[in-house]
Amino acid sequence: MSARASFNIPPSLRKVWMEEDRKMASADKITSRAIVCHDKLQNGGWKMDTVTLREPHDDELVIEMVASGICHTDALVGSIDPSPISFYPRILGHEGSGYVRAIGSKVTVASPGDPVLLSFTCCSSCSSCVAKHSSVCYSFNDINFGRNNVFSLASDSDPKYDIGGKFFGQSSFANFTIVDQKSVVNAKRLVRNDDELKLFAPLGCGIQTGSGTVINVAKAGEDDAVAVLGMGGVGLSAIMAAKIRGCRMIIGIDRVSQRLELAKELGATHVVDSSKLPEGKTLVDVVREIADGVGPTVTVDTTGVPALIQMGIEFTRYSGKAIQVGTAPADANLTIPIFPFMVAGKTYTGAVQGDSTPSEYVPQMVEWYRKRMFPIDRLIKLMPADEYERALHEMHSGETVKPVIVW
Amino acid sequence: MSARASFNIPPSLRKVWMEEDRKMASADKITSRAIVCHDKLQNGGWKMDTVTLREPHDDELVIEMVASGICHTDALVGSIDPSPISFYPRILGHEGSGYVRAIGSKVTVASPGDPVLLSFTCCSSCSSCVAKHSSVCYSFNDINFGRNNVFSLASDSDPKYDIGGKFFGQSSFANFTIVDQKSVVNAKRLVRNDDELKLFAPLGCGIQTGSGTVINVAKAGEDDAVAVLGMGGVGLSAIMAAKIRGCRMIIGIDRVSQRLELAKELGATHVVDSSKLPEGKTLVDVVREIADGVGPTVTVDTTGVPALIQMGIEFTRYSGKAIQVGTAPADANLTIPIFPFMVAGKTYTGAVQGDSTPSEYVPQMVEWYRKRMFPIDRLIKLMPADEYERALHEMHSGETVKPVIVW
Repeated sequence: MSARASFNIPPSLRKVWMEEDRKMASADKITSRAIVCHDKLQNGGWKMDTVTLREPHDDELVIEMVASGICHTDALVGSIDPSPISFYPRILGHEGSGYVRAIGSKVTVASPGDPVLLSFTCCSSCSSCVAKHSSVCYSFNDINFGRNNVFSLASDSDPKYDIGGKFFGQSSFANFTIVDQKSVVNAKRLVRNDDELKLFAPLGCGIQTGSGTVINVAKAGEDDAVAVLGMGGVGLSAIMAAKIRGCRMIIGIDRVSQRLELAKELGATHVVDSSKLPEGKTLVDVVREIADGVGPTVTVDTTGVPALIQMGIEFTRYSGKAIQVGTAPADANLTIPIFPFMVAGKTYTGAVQGDSTPSEYVPQMVEWYRKRMFPIDRLIKLMPADEYERALHEMHSGETVKPVIVW
Repeated sequence: MSARASFNIPPSLRKVWMEEDRKMASADKITSRAIVCHDKLQNGGWKMDTVTLREPHDDELVIEMVASGICHTDALVGSIDPSPISFYPRILGHEGSGYVRAIGSKVTVASPGDPVLLSFTCCSSCSSCVAKHSSVCYSFNDINFGRNNVFSLASDSDPKYDIGGKFFGQSSFANFTIVDQKSVVNAKRLVRNDDELKLFAPLGCGIQTGSGTVINVAKAGEDDAVAVLGMGGVGLSAIMAAKIRGCRMIIGIDRVSQRLELAKELGATHVVDSSKLPEGKTLVDVVREIADGVGPTVTVDTTGVPALIQMGIEFTRYSGKAIQVGTAPADANLTIPIFPFMVAGKTYTGAVQGDSTPSEYVPQMVEWYRKRMFPIDRLIKLMPADEYERALHEMHSGETVKPVIVW
């Protein structure tokens, strides 16, 4: 923890923290470096700036971030025109780890000084949340993507706090940030050191999504033949989870050969390079042939590409499950022929965040990691936060599966 | 059993039966009354005729039918142009009960004299069958709907046996018929008398389909709010099953008020007359309002009407299941908006025969009936086989939910 002392913590905040009470920090400004999206990424609108934080509310924590995972969703939301899920200026970032530096009066999840891992937030009162399916909270988009003014440029003499924060309850692309307590998984009993905290930073989104889909949604087991479309961080996490569950066949599908190699190292029993199909064969033919001639019992689409989704449903075995995880274009539709789908007894399911309850599932992933069953380090590359543009570039080029920036 | 003696059993057949061995009956002709579809129903092509049966094969039984349920699928298949599932002349009927009168050399499921209940058949070797999902057998259509020449008109001096039989492995619209042993559920320990055998005749299709969907596919429980579209025999069986599982809310939807009344008597906590929606409200609005404002957790469509299916998926709650049971037109498609469906965490599943294994599920239904939890007698009306045209008429008009003709 001594490493943290080198950061500039405002005296008033440090006081609260040192006193180890749960009272709100006084309203003194907390200053932080942060990646601010002033405009779309492709317009050069993302900048490392110095910002100040507004006062945290009763149910919020001030977190000093250690590391933040970068996900395609960050790049997507920060690259599109203003919409219900996108606006400017804002601070993105929705995978992260850090230490609690102050807490609101109603915070019970963690105390100042505790290490934490961050995930999505939810309303906790709708029918989905009550039924422990909070990743499909009825207010998910409003709460996780909506406008929450948290930050101001530090240069403002009269801070307006009009830079959006609390993206996924956290906006973790900042050295200090304000986090909803529902986004917090207390890691006091989970992490042993700062190196682990960096490594575990992305657990709460992409890795949870991919593995949770296989574990919680498909509930895959030894009898299953699992196919995964797309070998990004989500898809490779699905591969690792299928191996954990002892699935008898695990098929990784991508068009990048290095990703397919990595998939094999992580547990894929078969891989298919969709850019190099044998003459006269479709992807449906090839996947079915591998999977006993009839197709996988579980298909996970992590690509969001409608044509691949359609093929995935088609090659899924009778009475099998096709699970939608990848984000399709907002206006994309799937066409399902009702009668043939019915008599095949197939299932098509939407899944978000692997239907995980992070407070339970994140510790589970850490346990698998400790048992060397979940080698997430193979997916992750750490980079200094100032090199976030390189991190984005390597994610887009495919060179890095899961870039994690370190503050 | 003495009542059966009045039928004309060929002497050679009776011999086998009396000897209680499992040898094949000799090839003497067995004569039977049967409803033969010479042409489409609407062309007046269905006629009560006298037919002879070919010799049964090693894995077949000769069954003397006691009663046969009539299902919309019989009417459908006997009303359409020749296609992979339809041809003429044939004998339909796929719900039935009777007594074994002779068995092939490889039959182990029942012995001569045993009462039996009939259901669908399957290949028993494909991946679906091996995984105990035989209702989505890869050869289901070929085996259950395909051409199996079994019968000949008794007037033929040189019988050609070109009248199709073994519809669903049984062709139970005949007083004597040849049945695949995989279609047979031995009812020796299930039925107490002929009255019960008549009552249980339709268990193996429509009633199994509706109730099995709730029990085996939805796996509905006390926390579930179940909506069922269509209050025919399948839908009402789903209502009874939801009551058995103690579902906290059971919503029956139809446009026939008597059916809705019956649904209430059988367990529906709410009913919706889709022909009388309040001004300015859609079916989606109304069903959601009833179900906690967010819709049912389980929706079962038994109508096959694409517009209703689409509404059913829409009104299903986030993380809920919409299950397809009703037969849609062969070329009907469903449009699913990928992203909204995914973030709702919904599931769309096709189900056939309630994913039941009849040898296990039929006895389960009988047990529920005995415990007065499954009042199938409320759905059934017995009529003499000769009045099959009236039975069809009453089924189509809605006057009778489940007509059962008695031989």
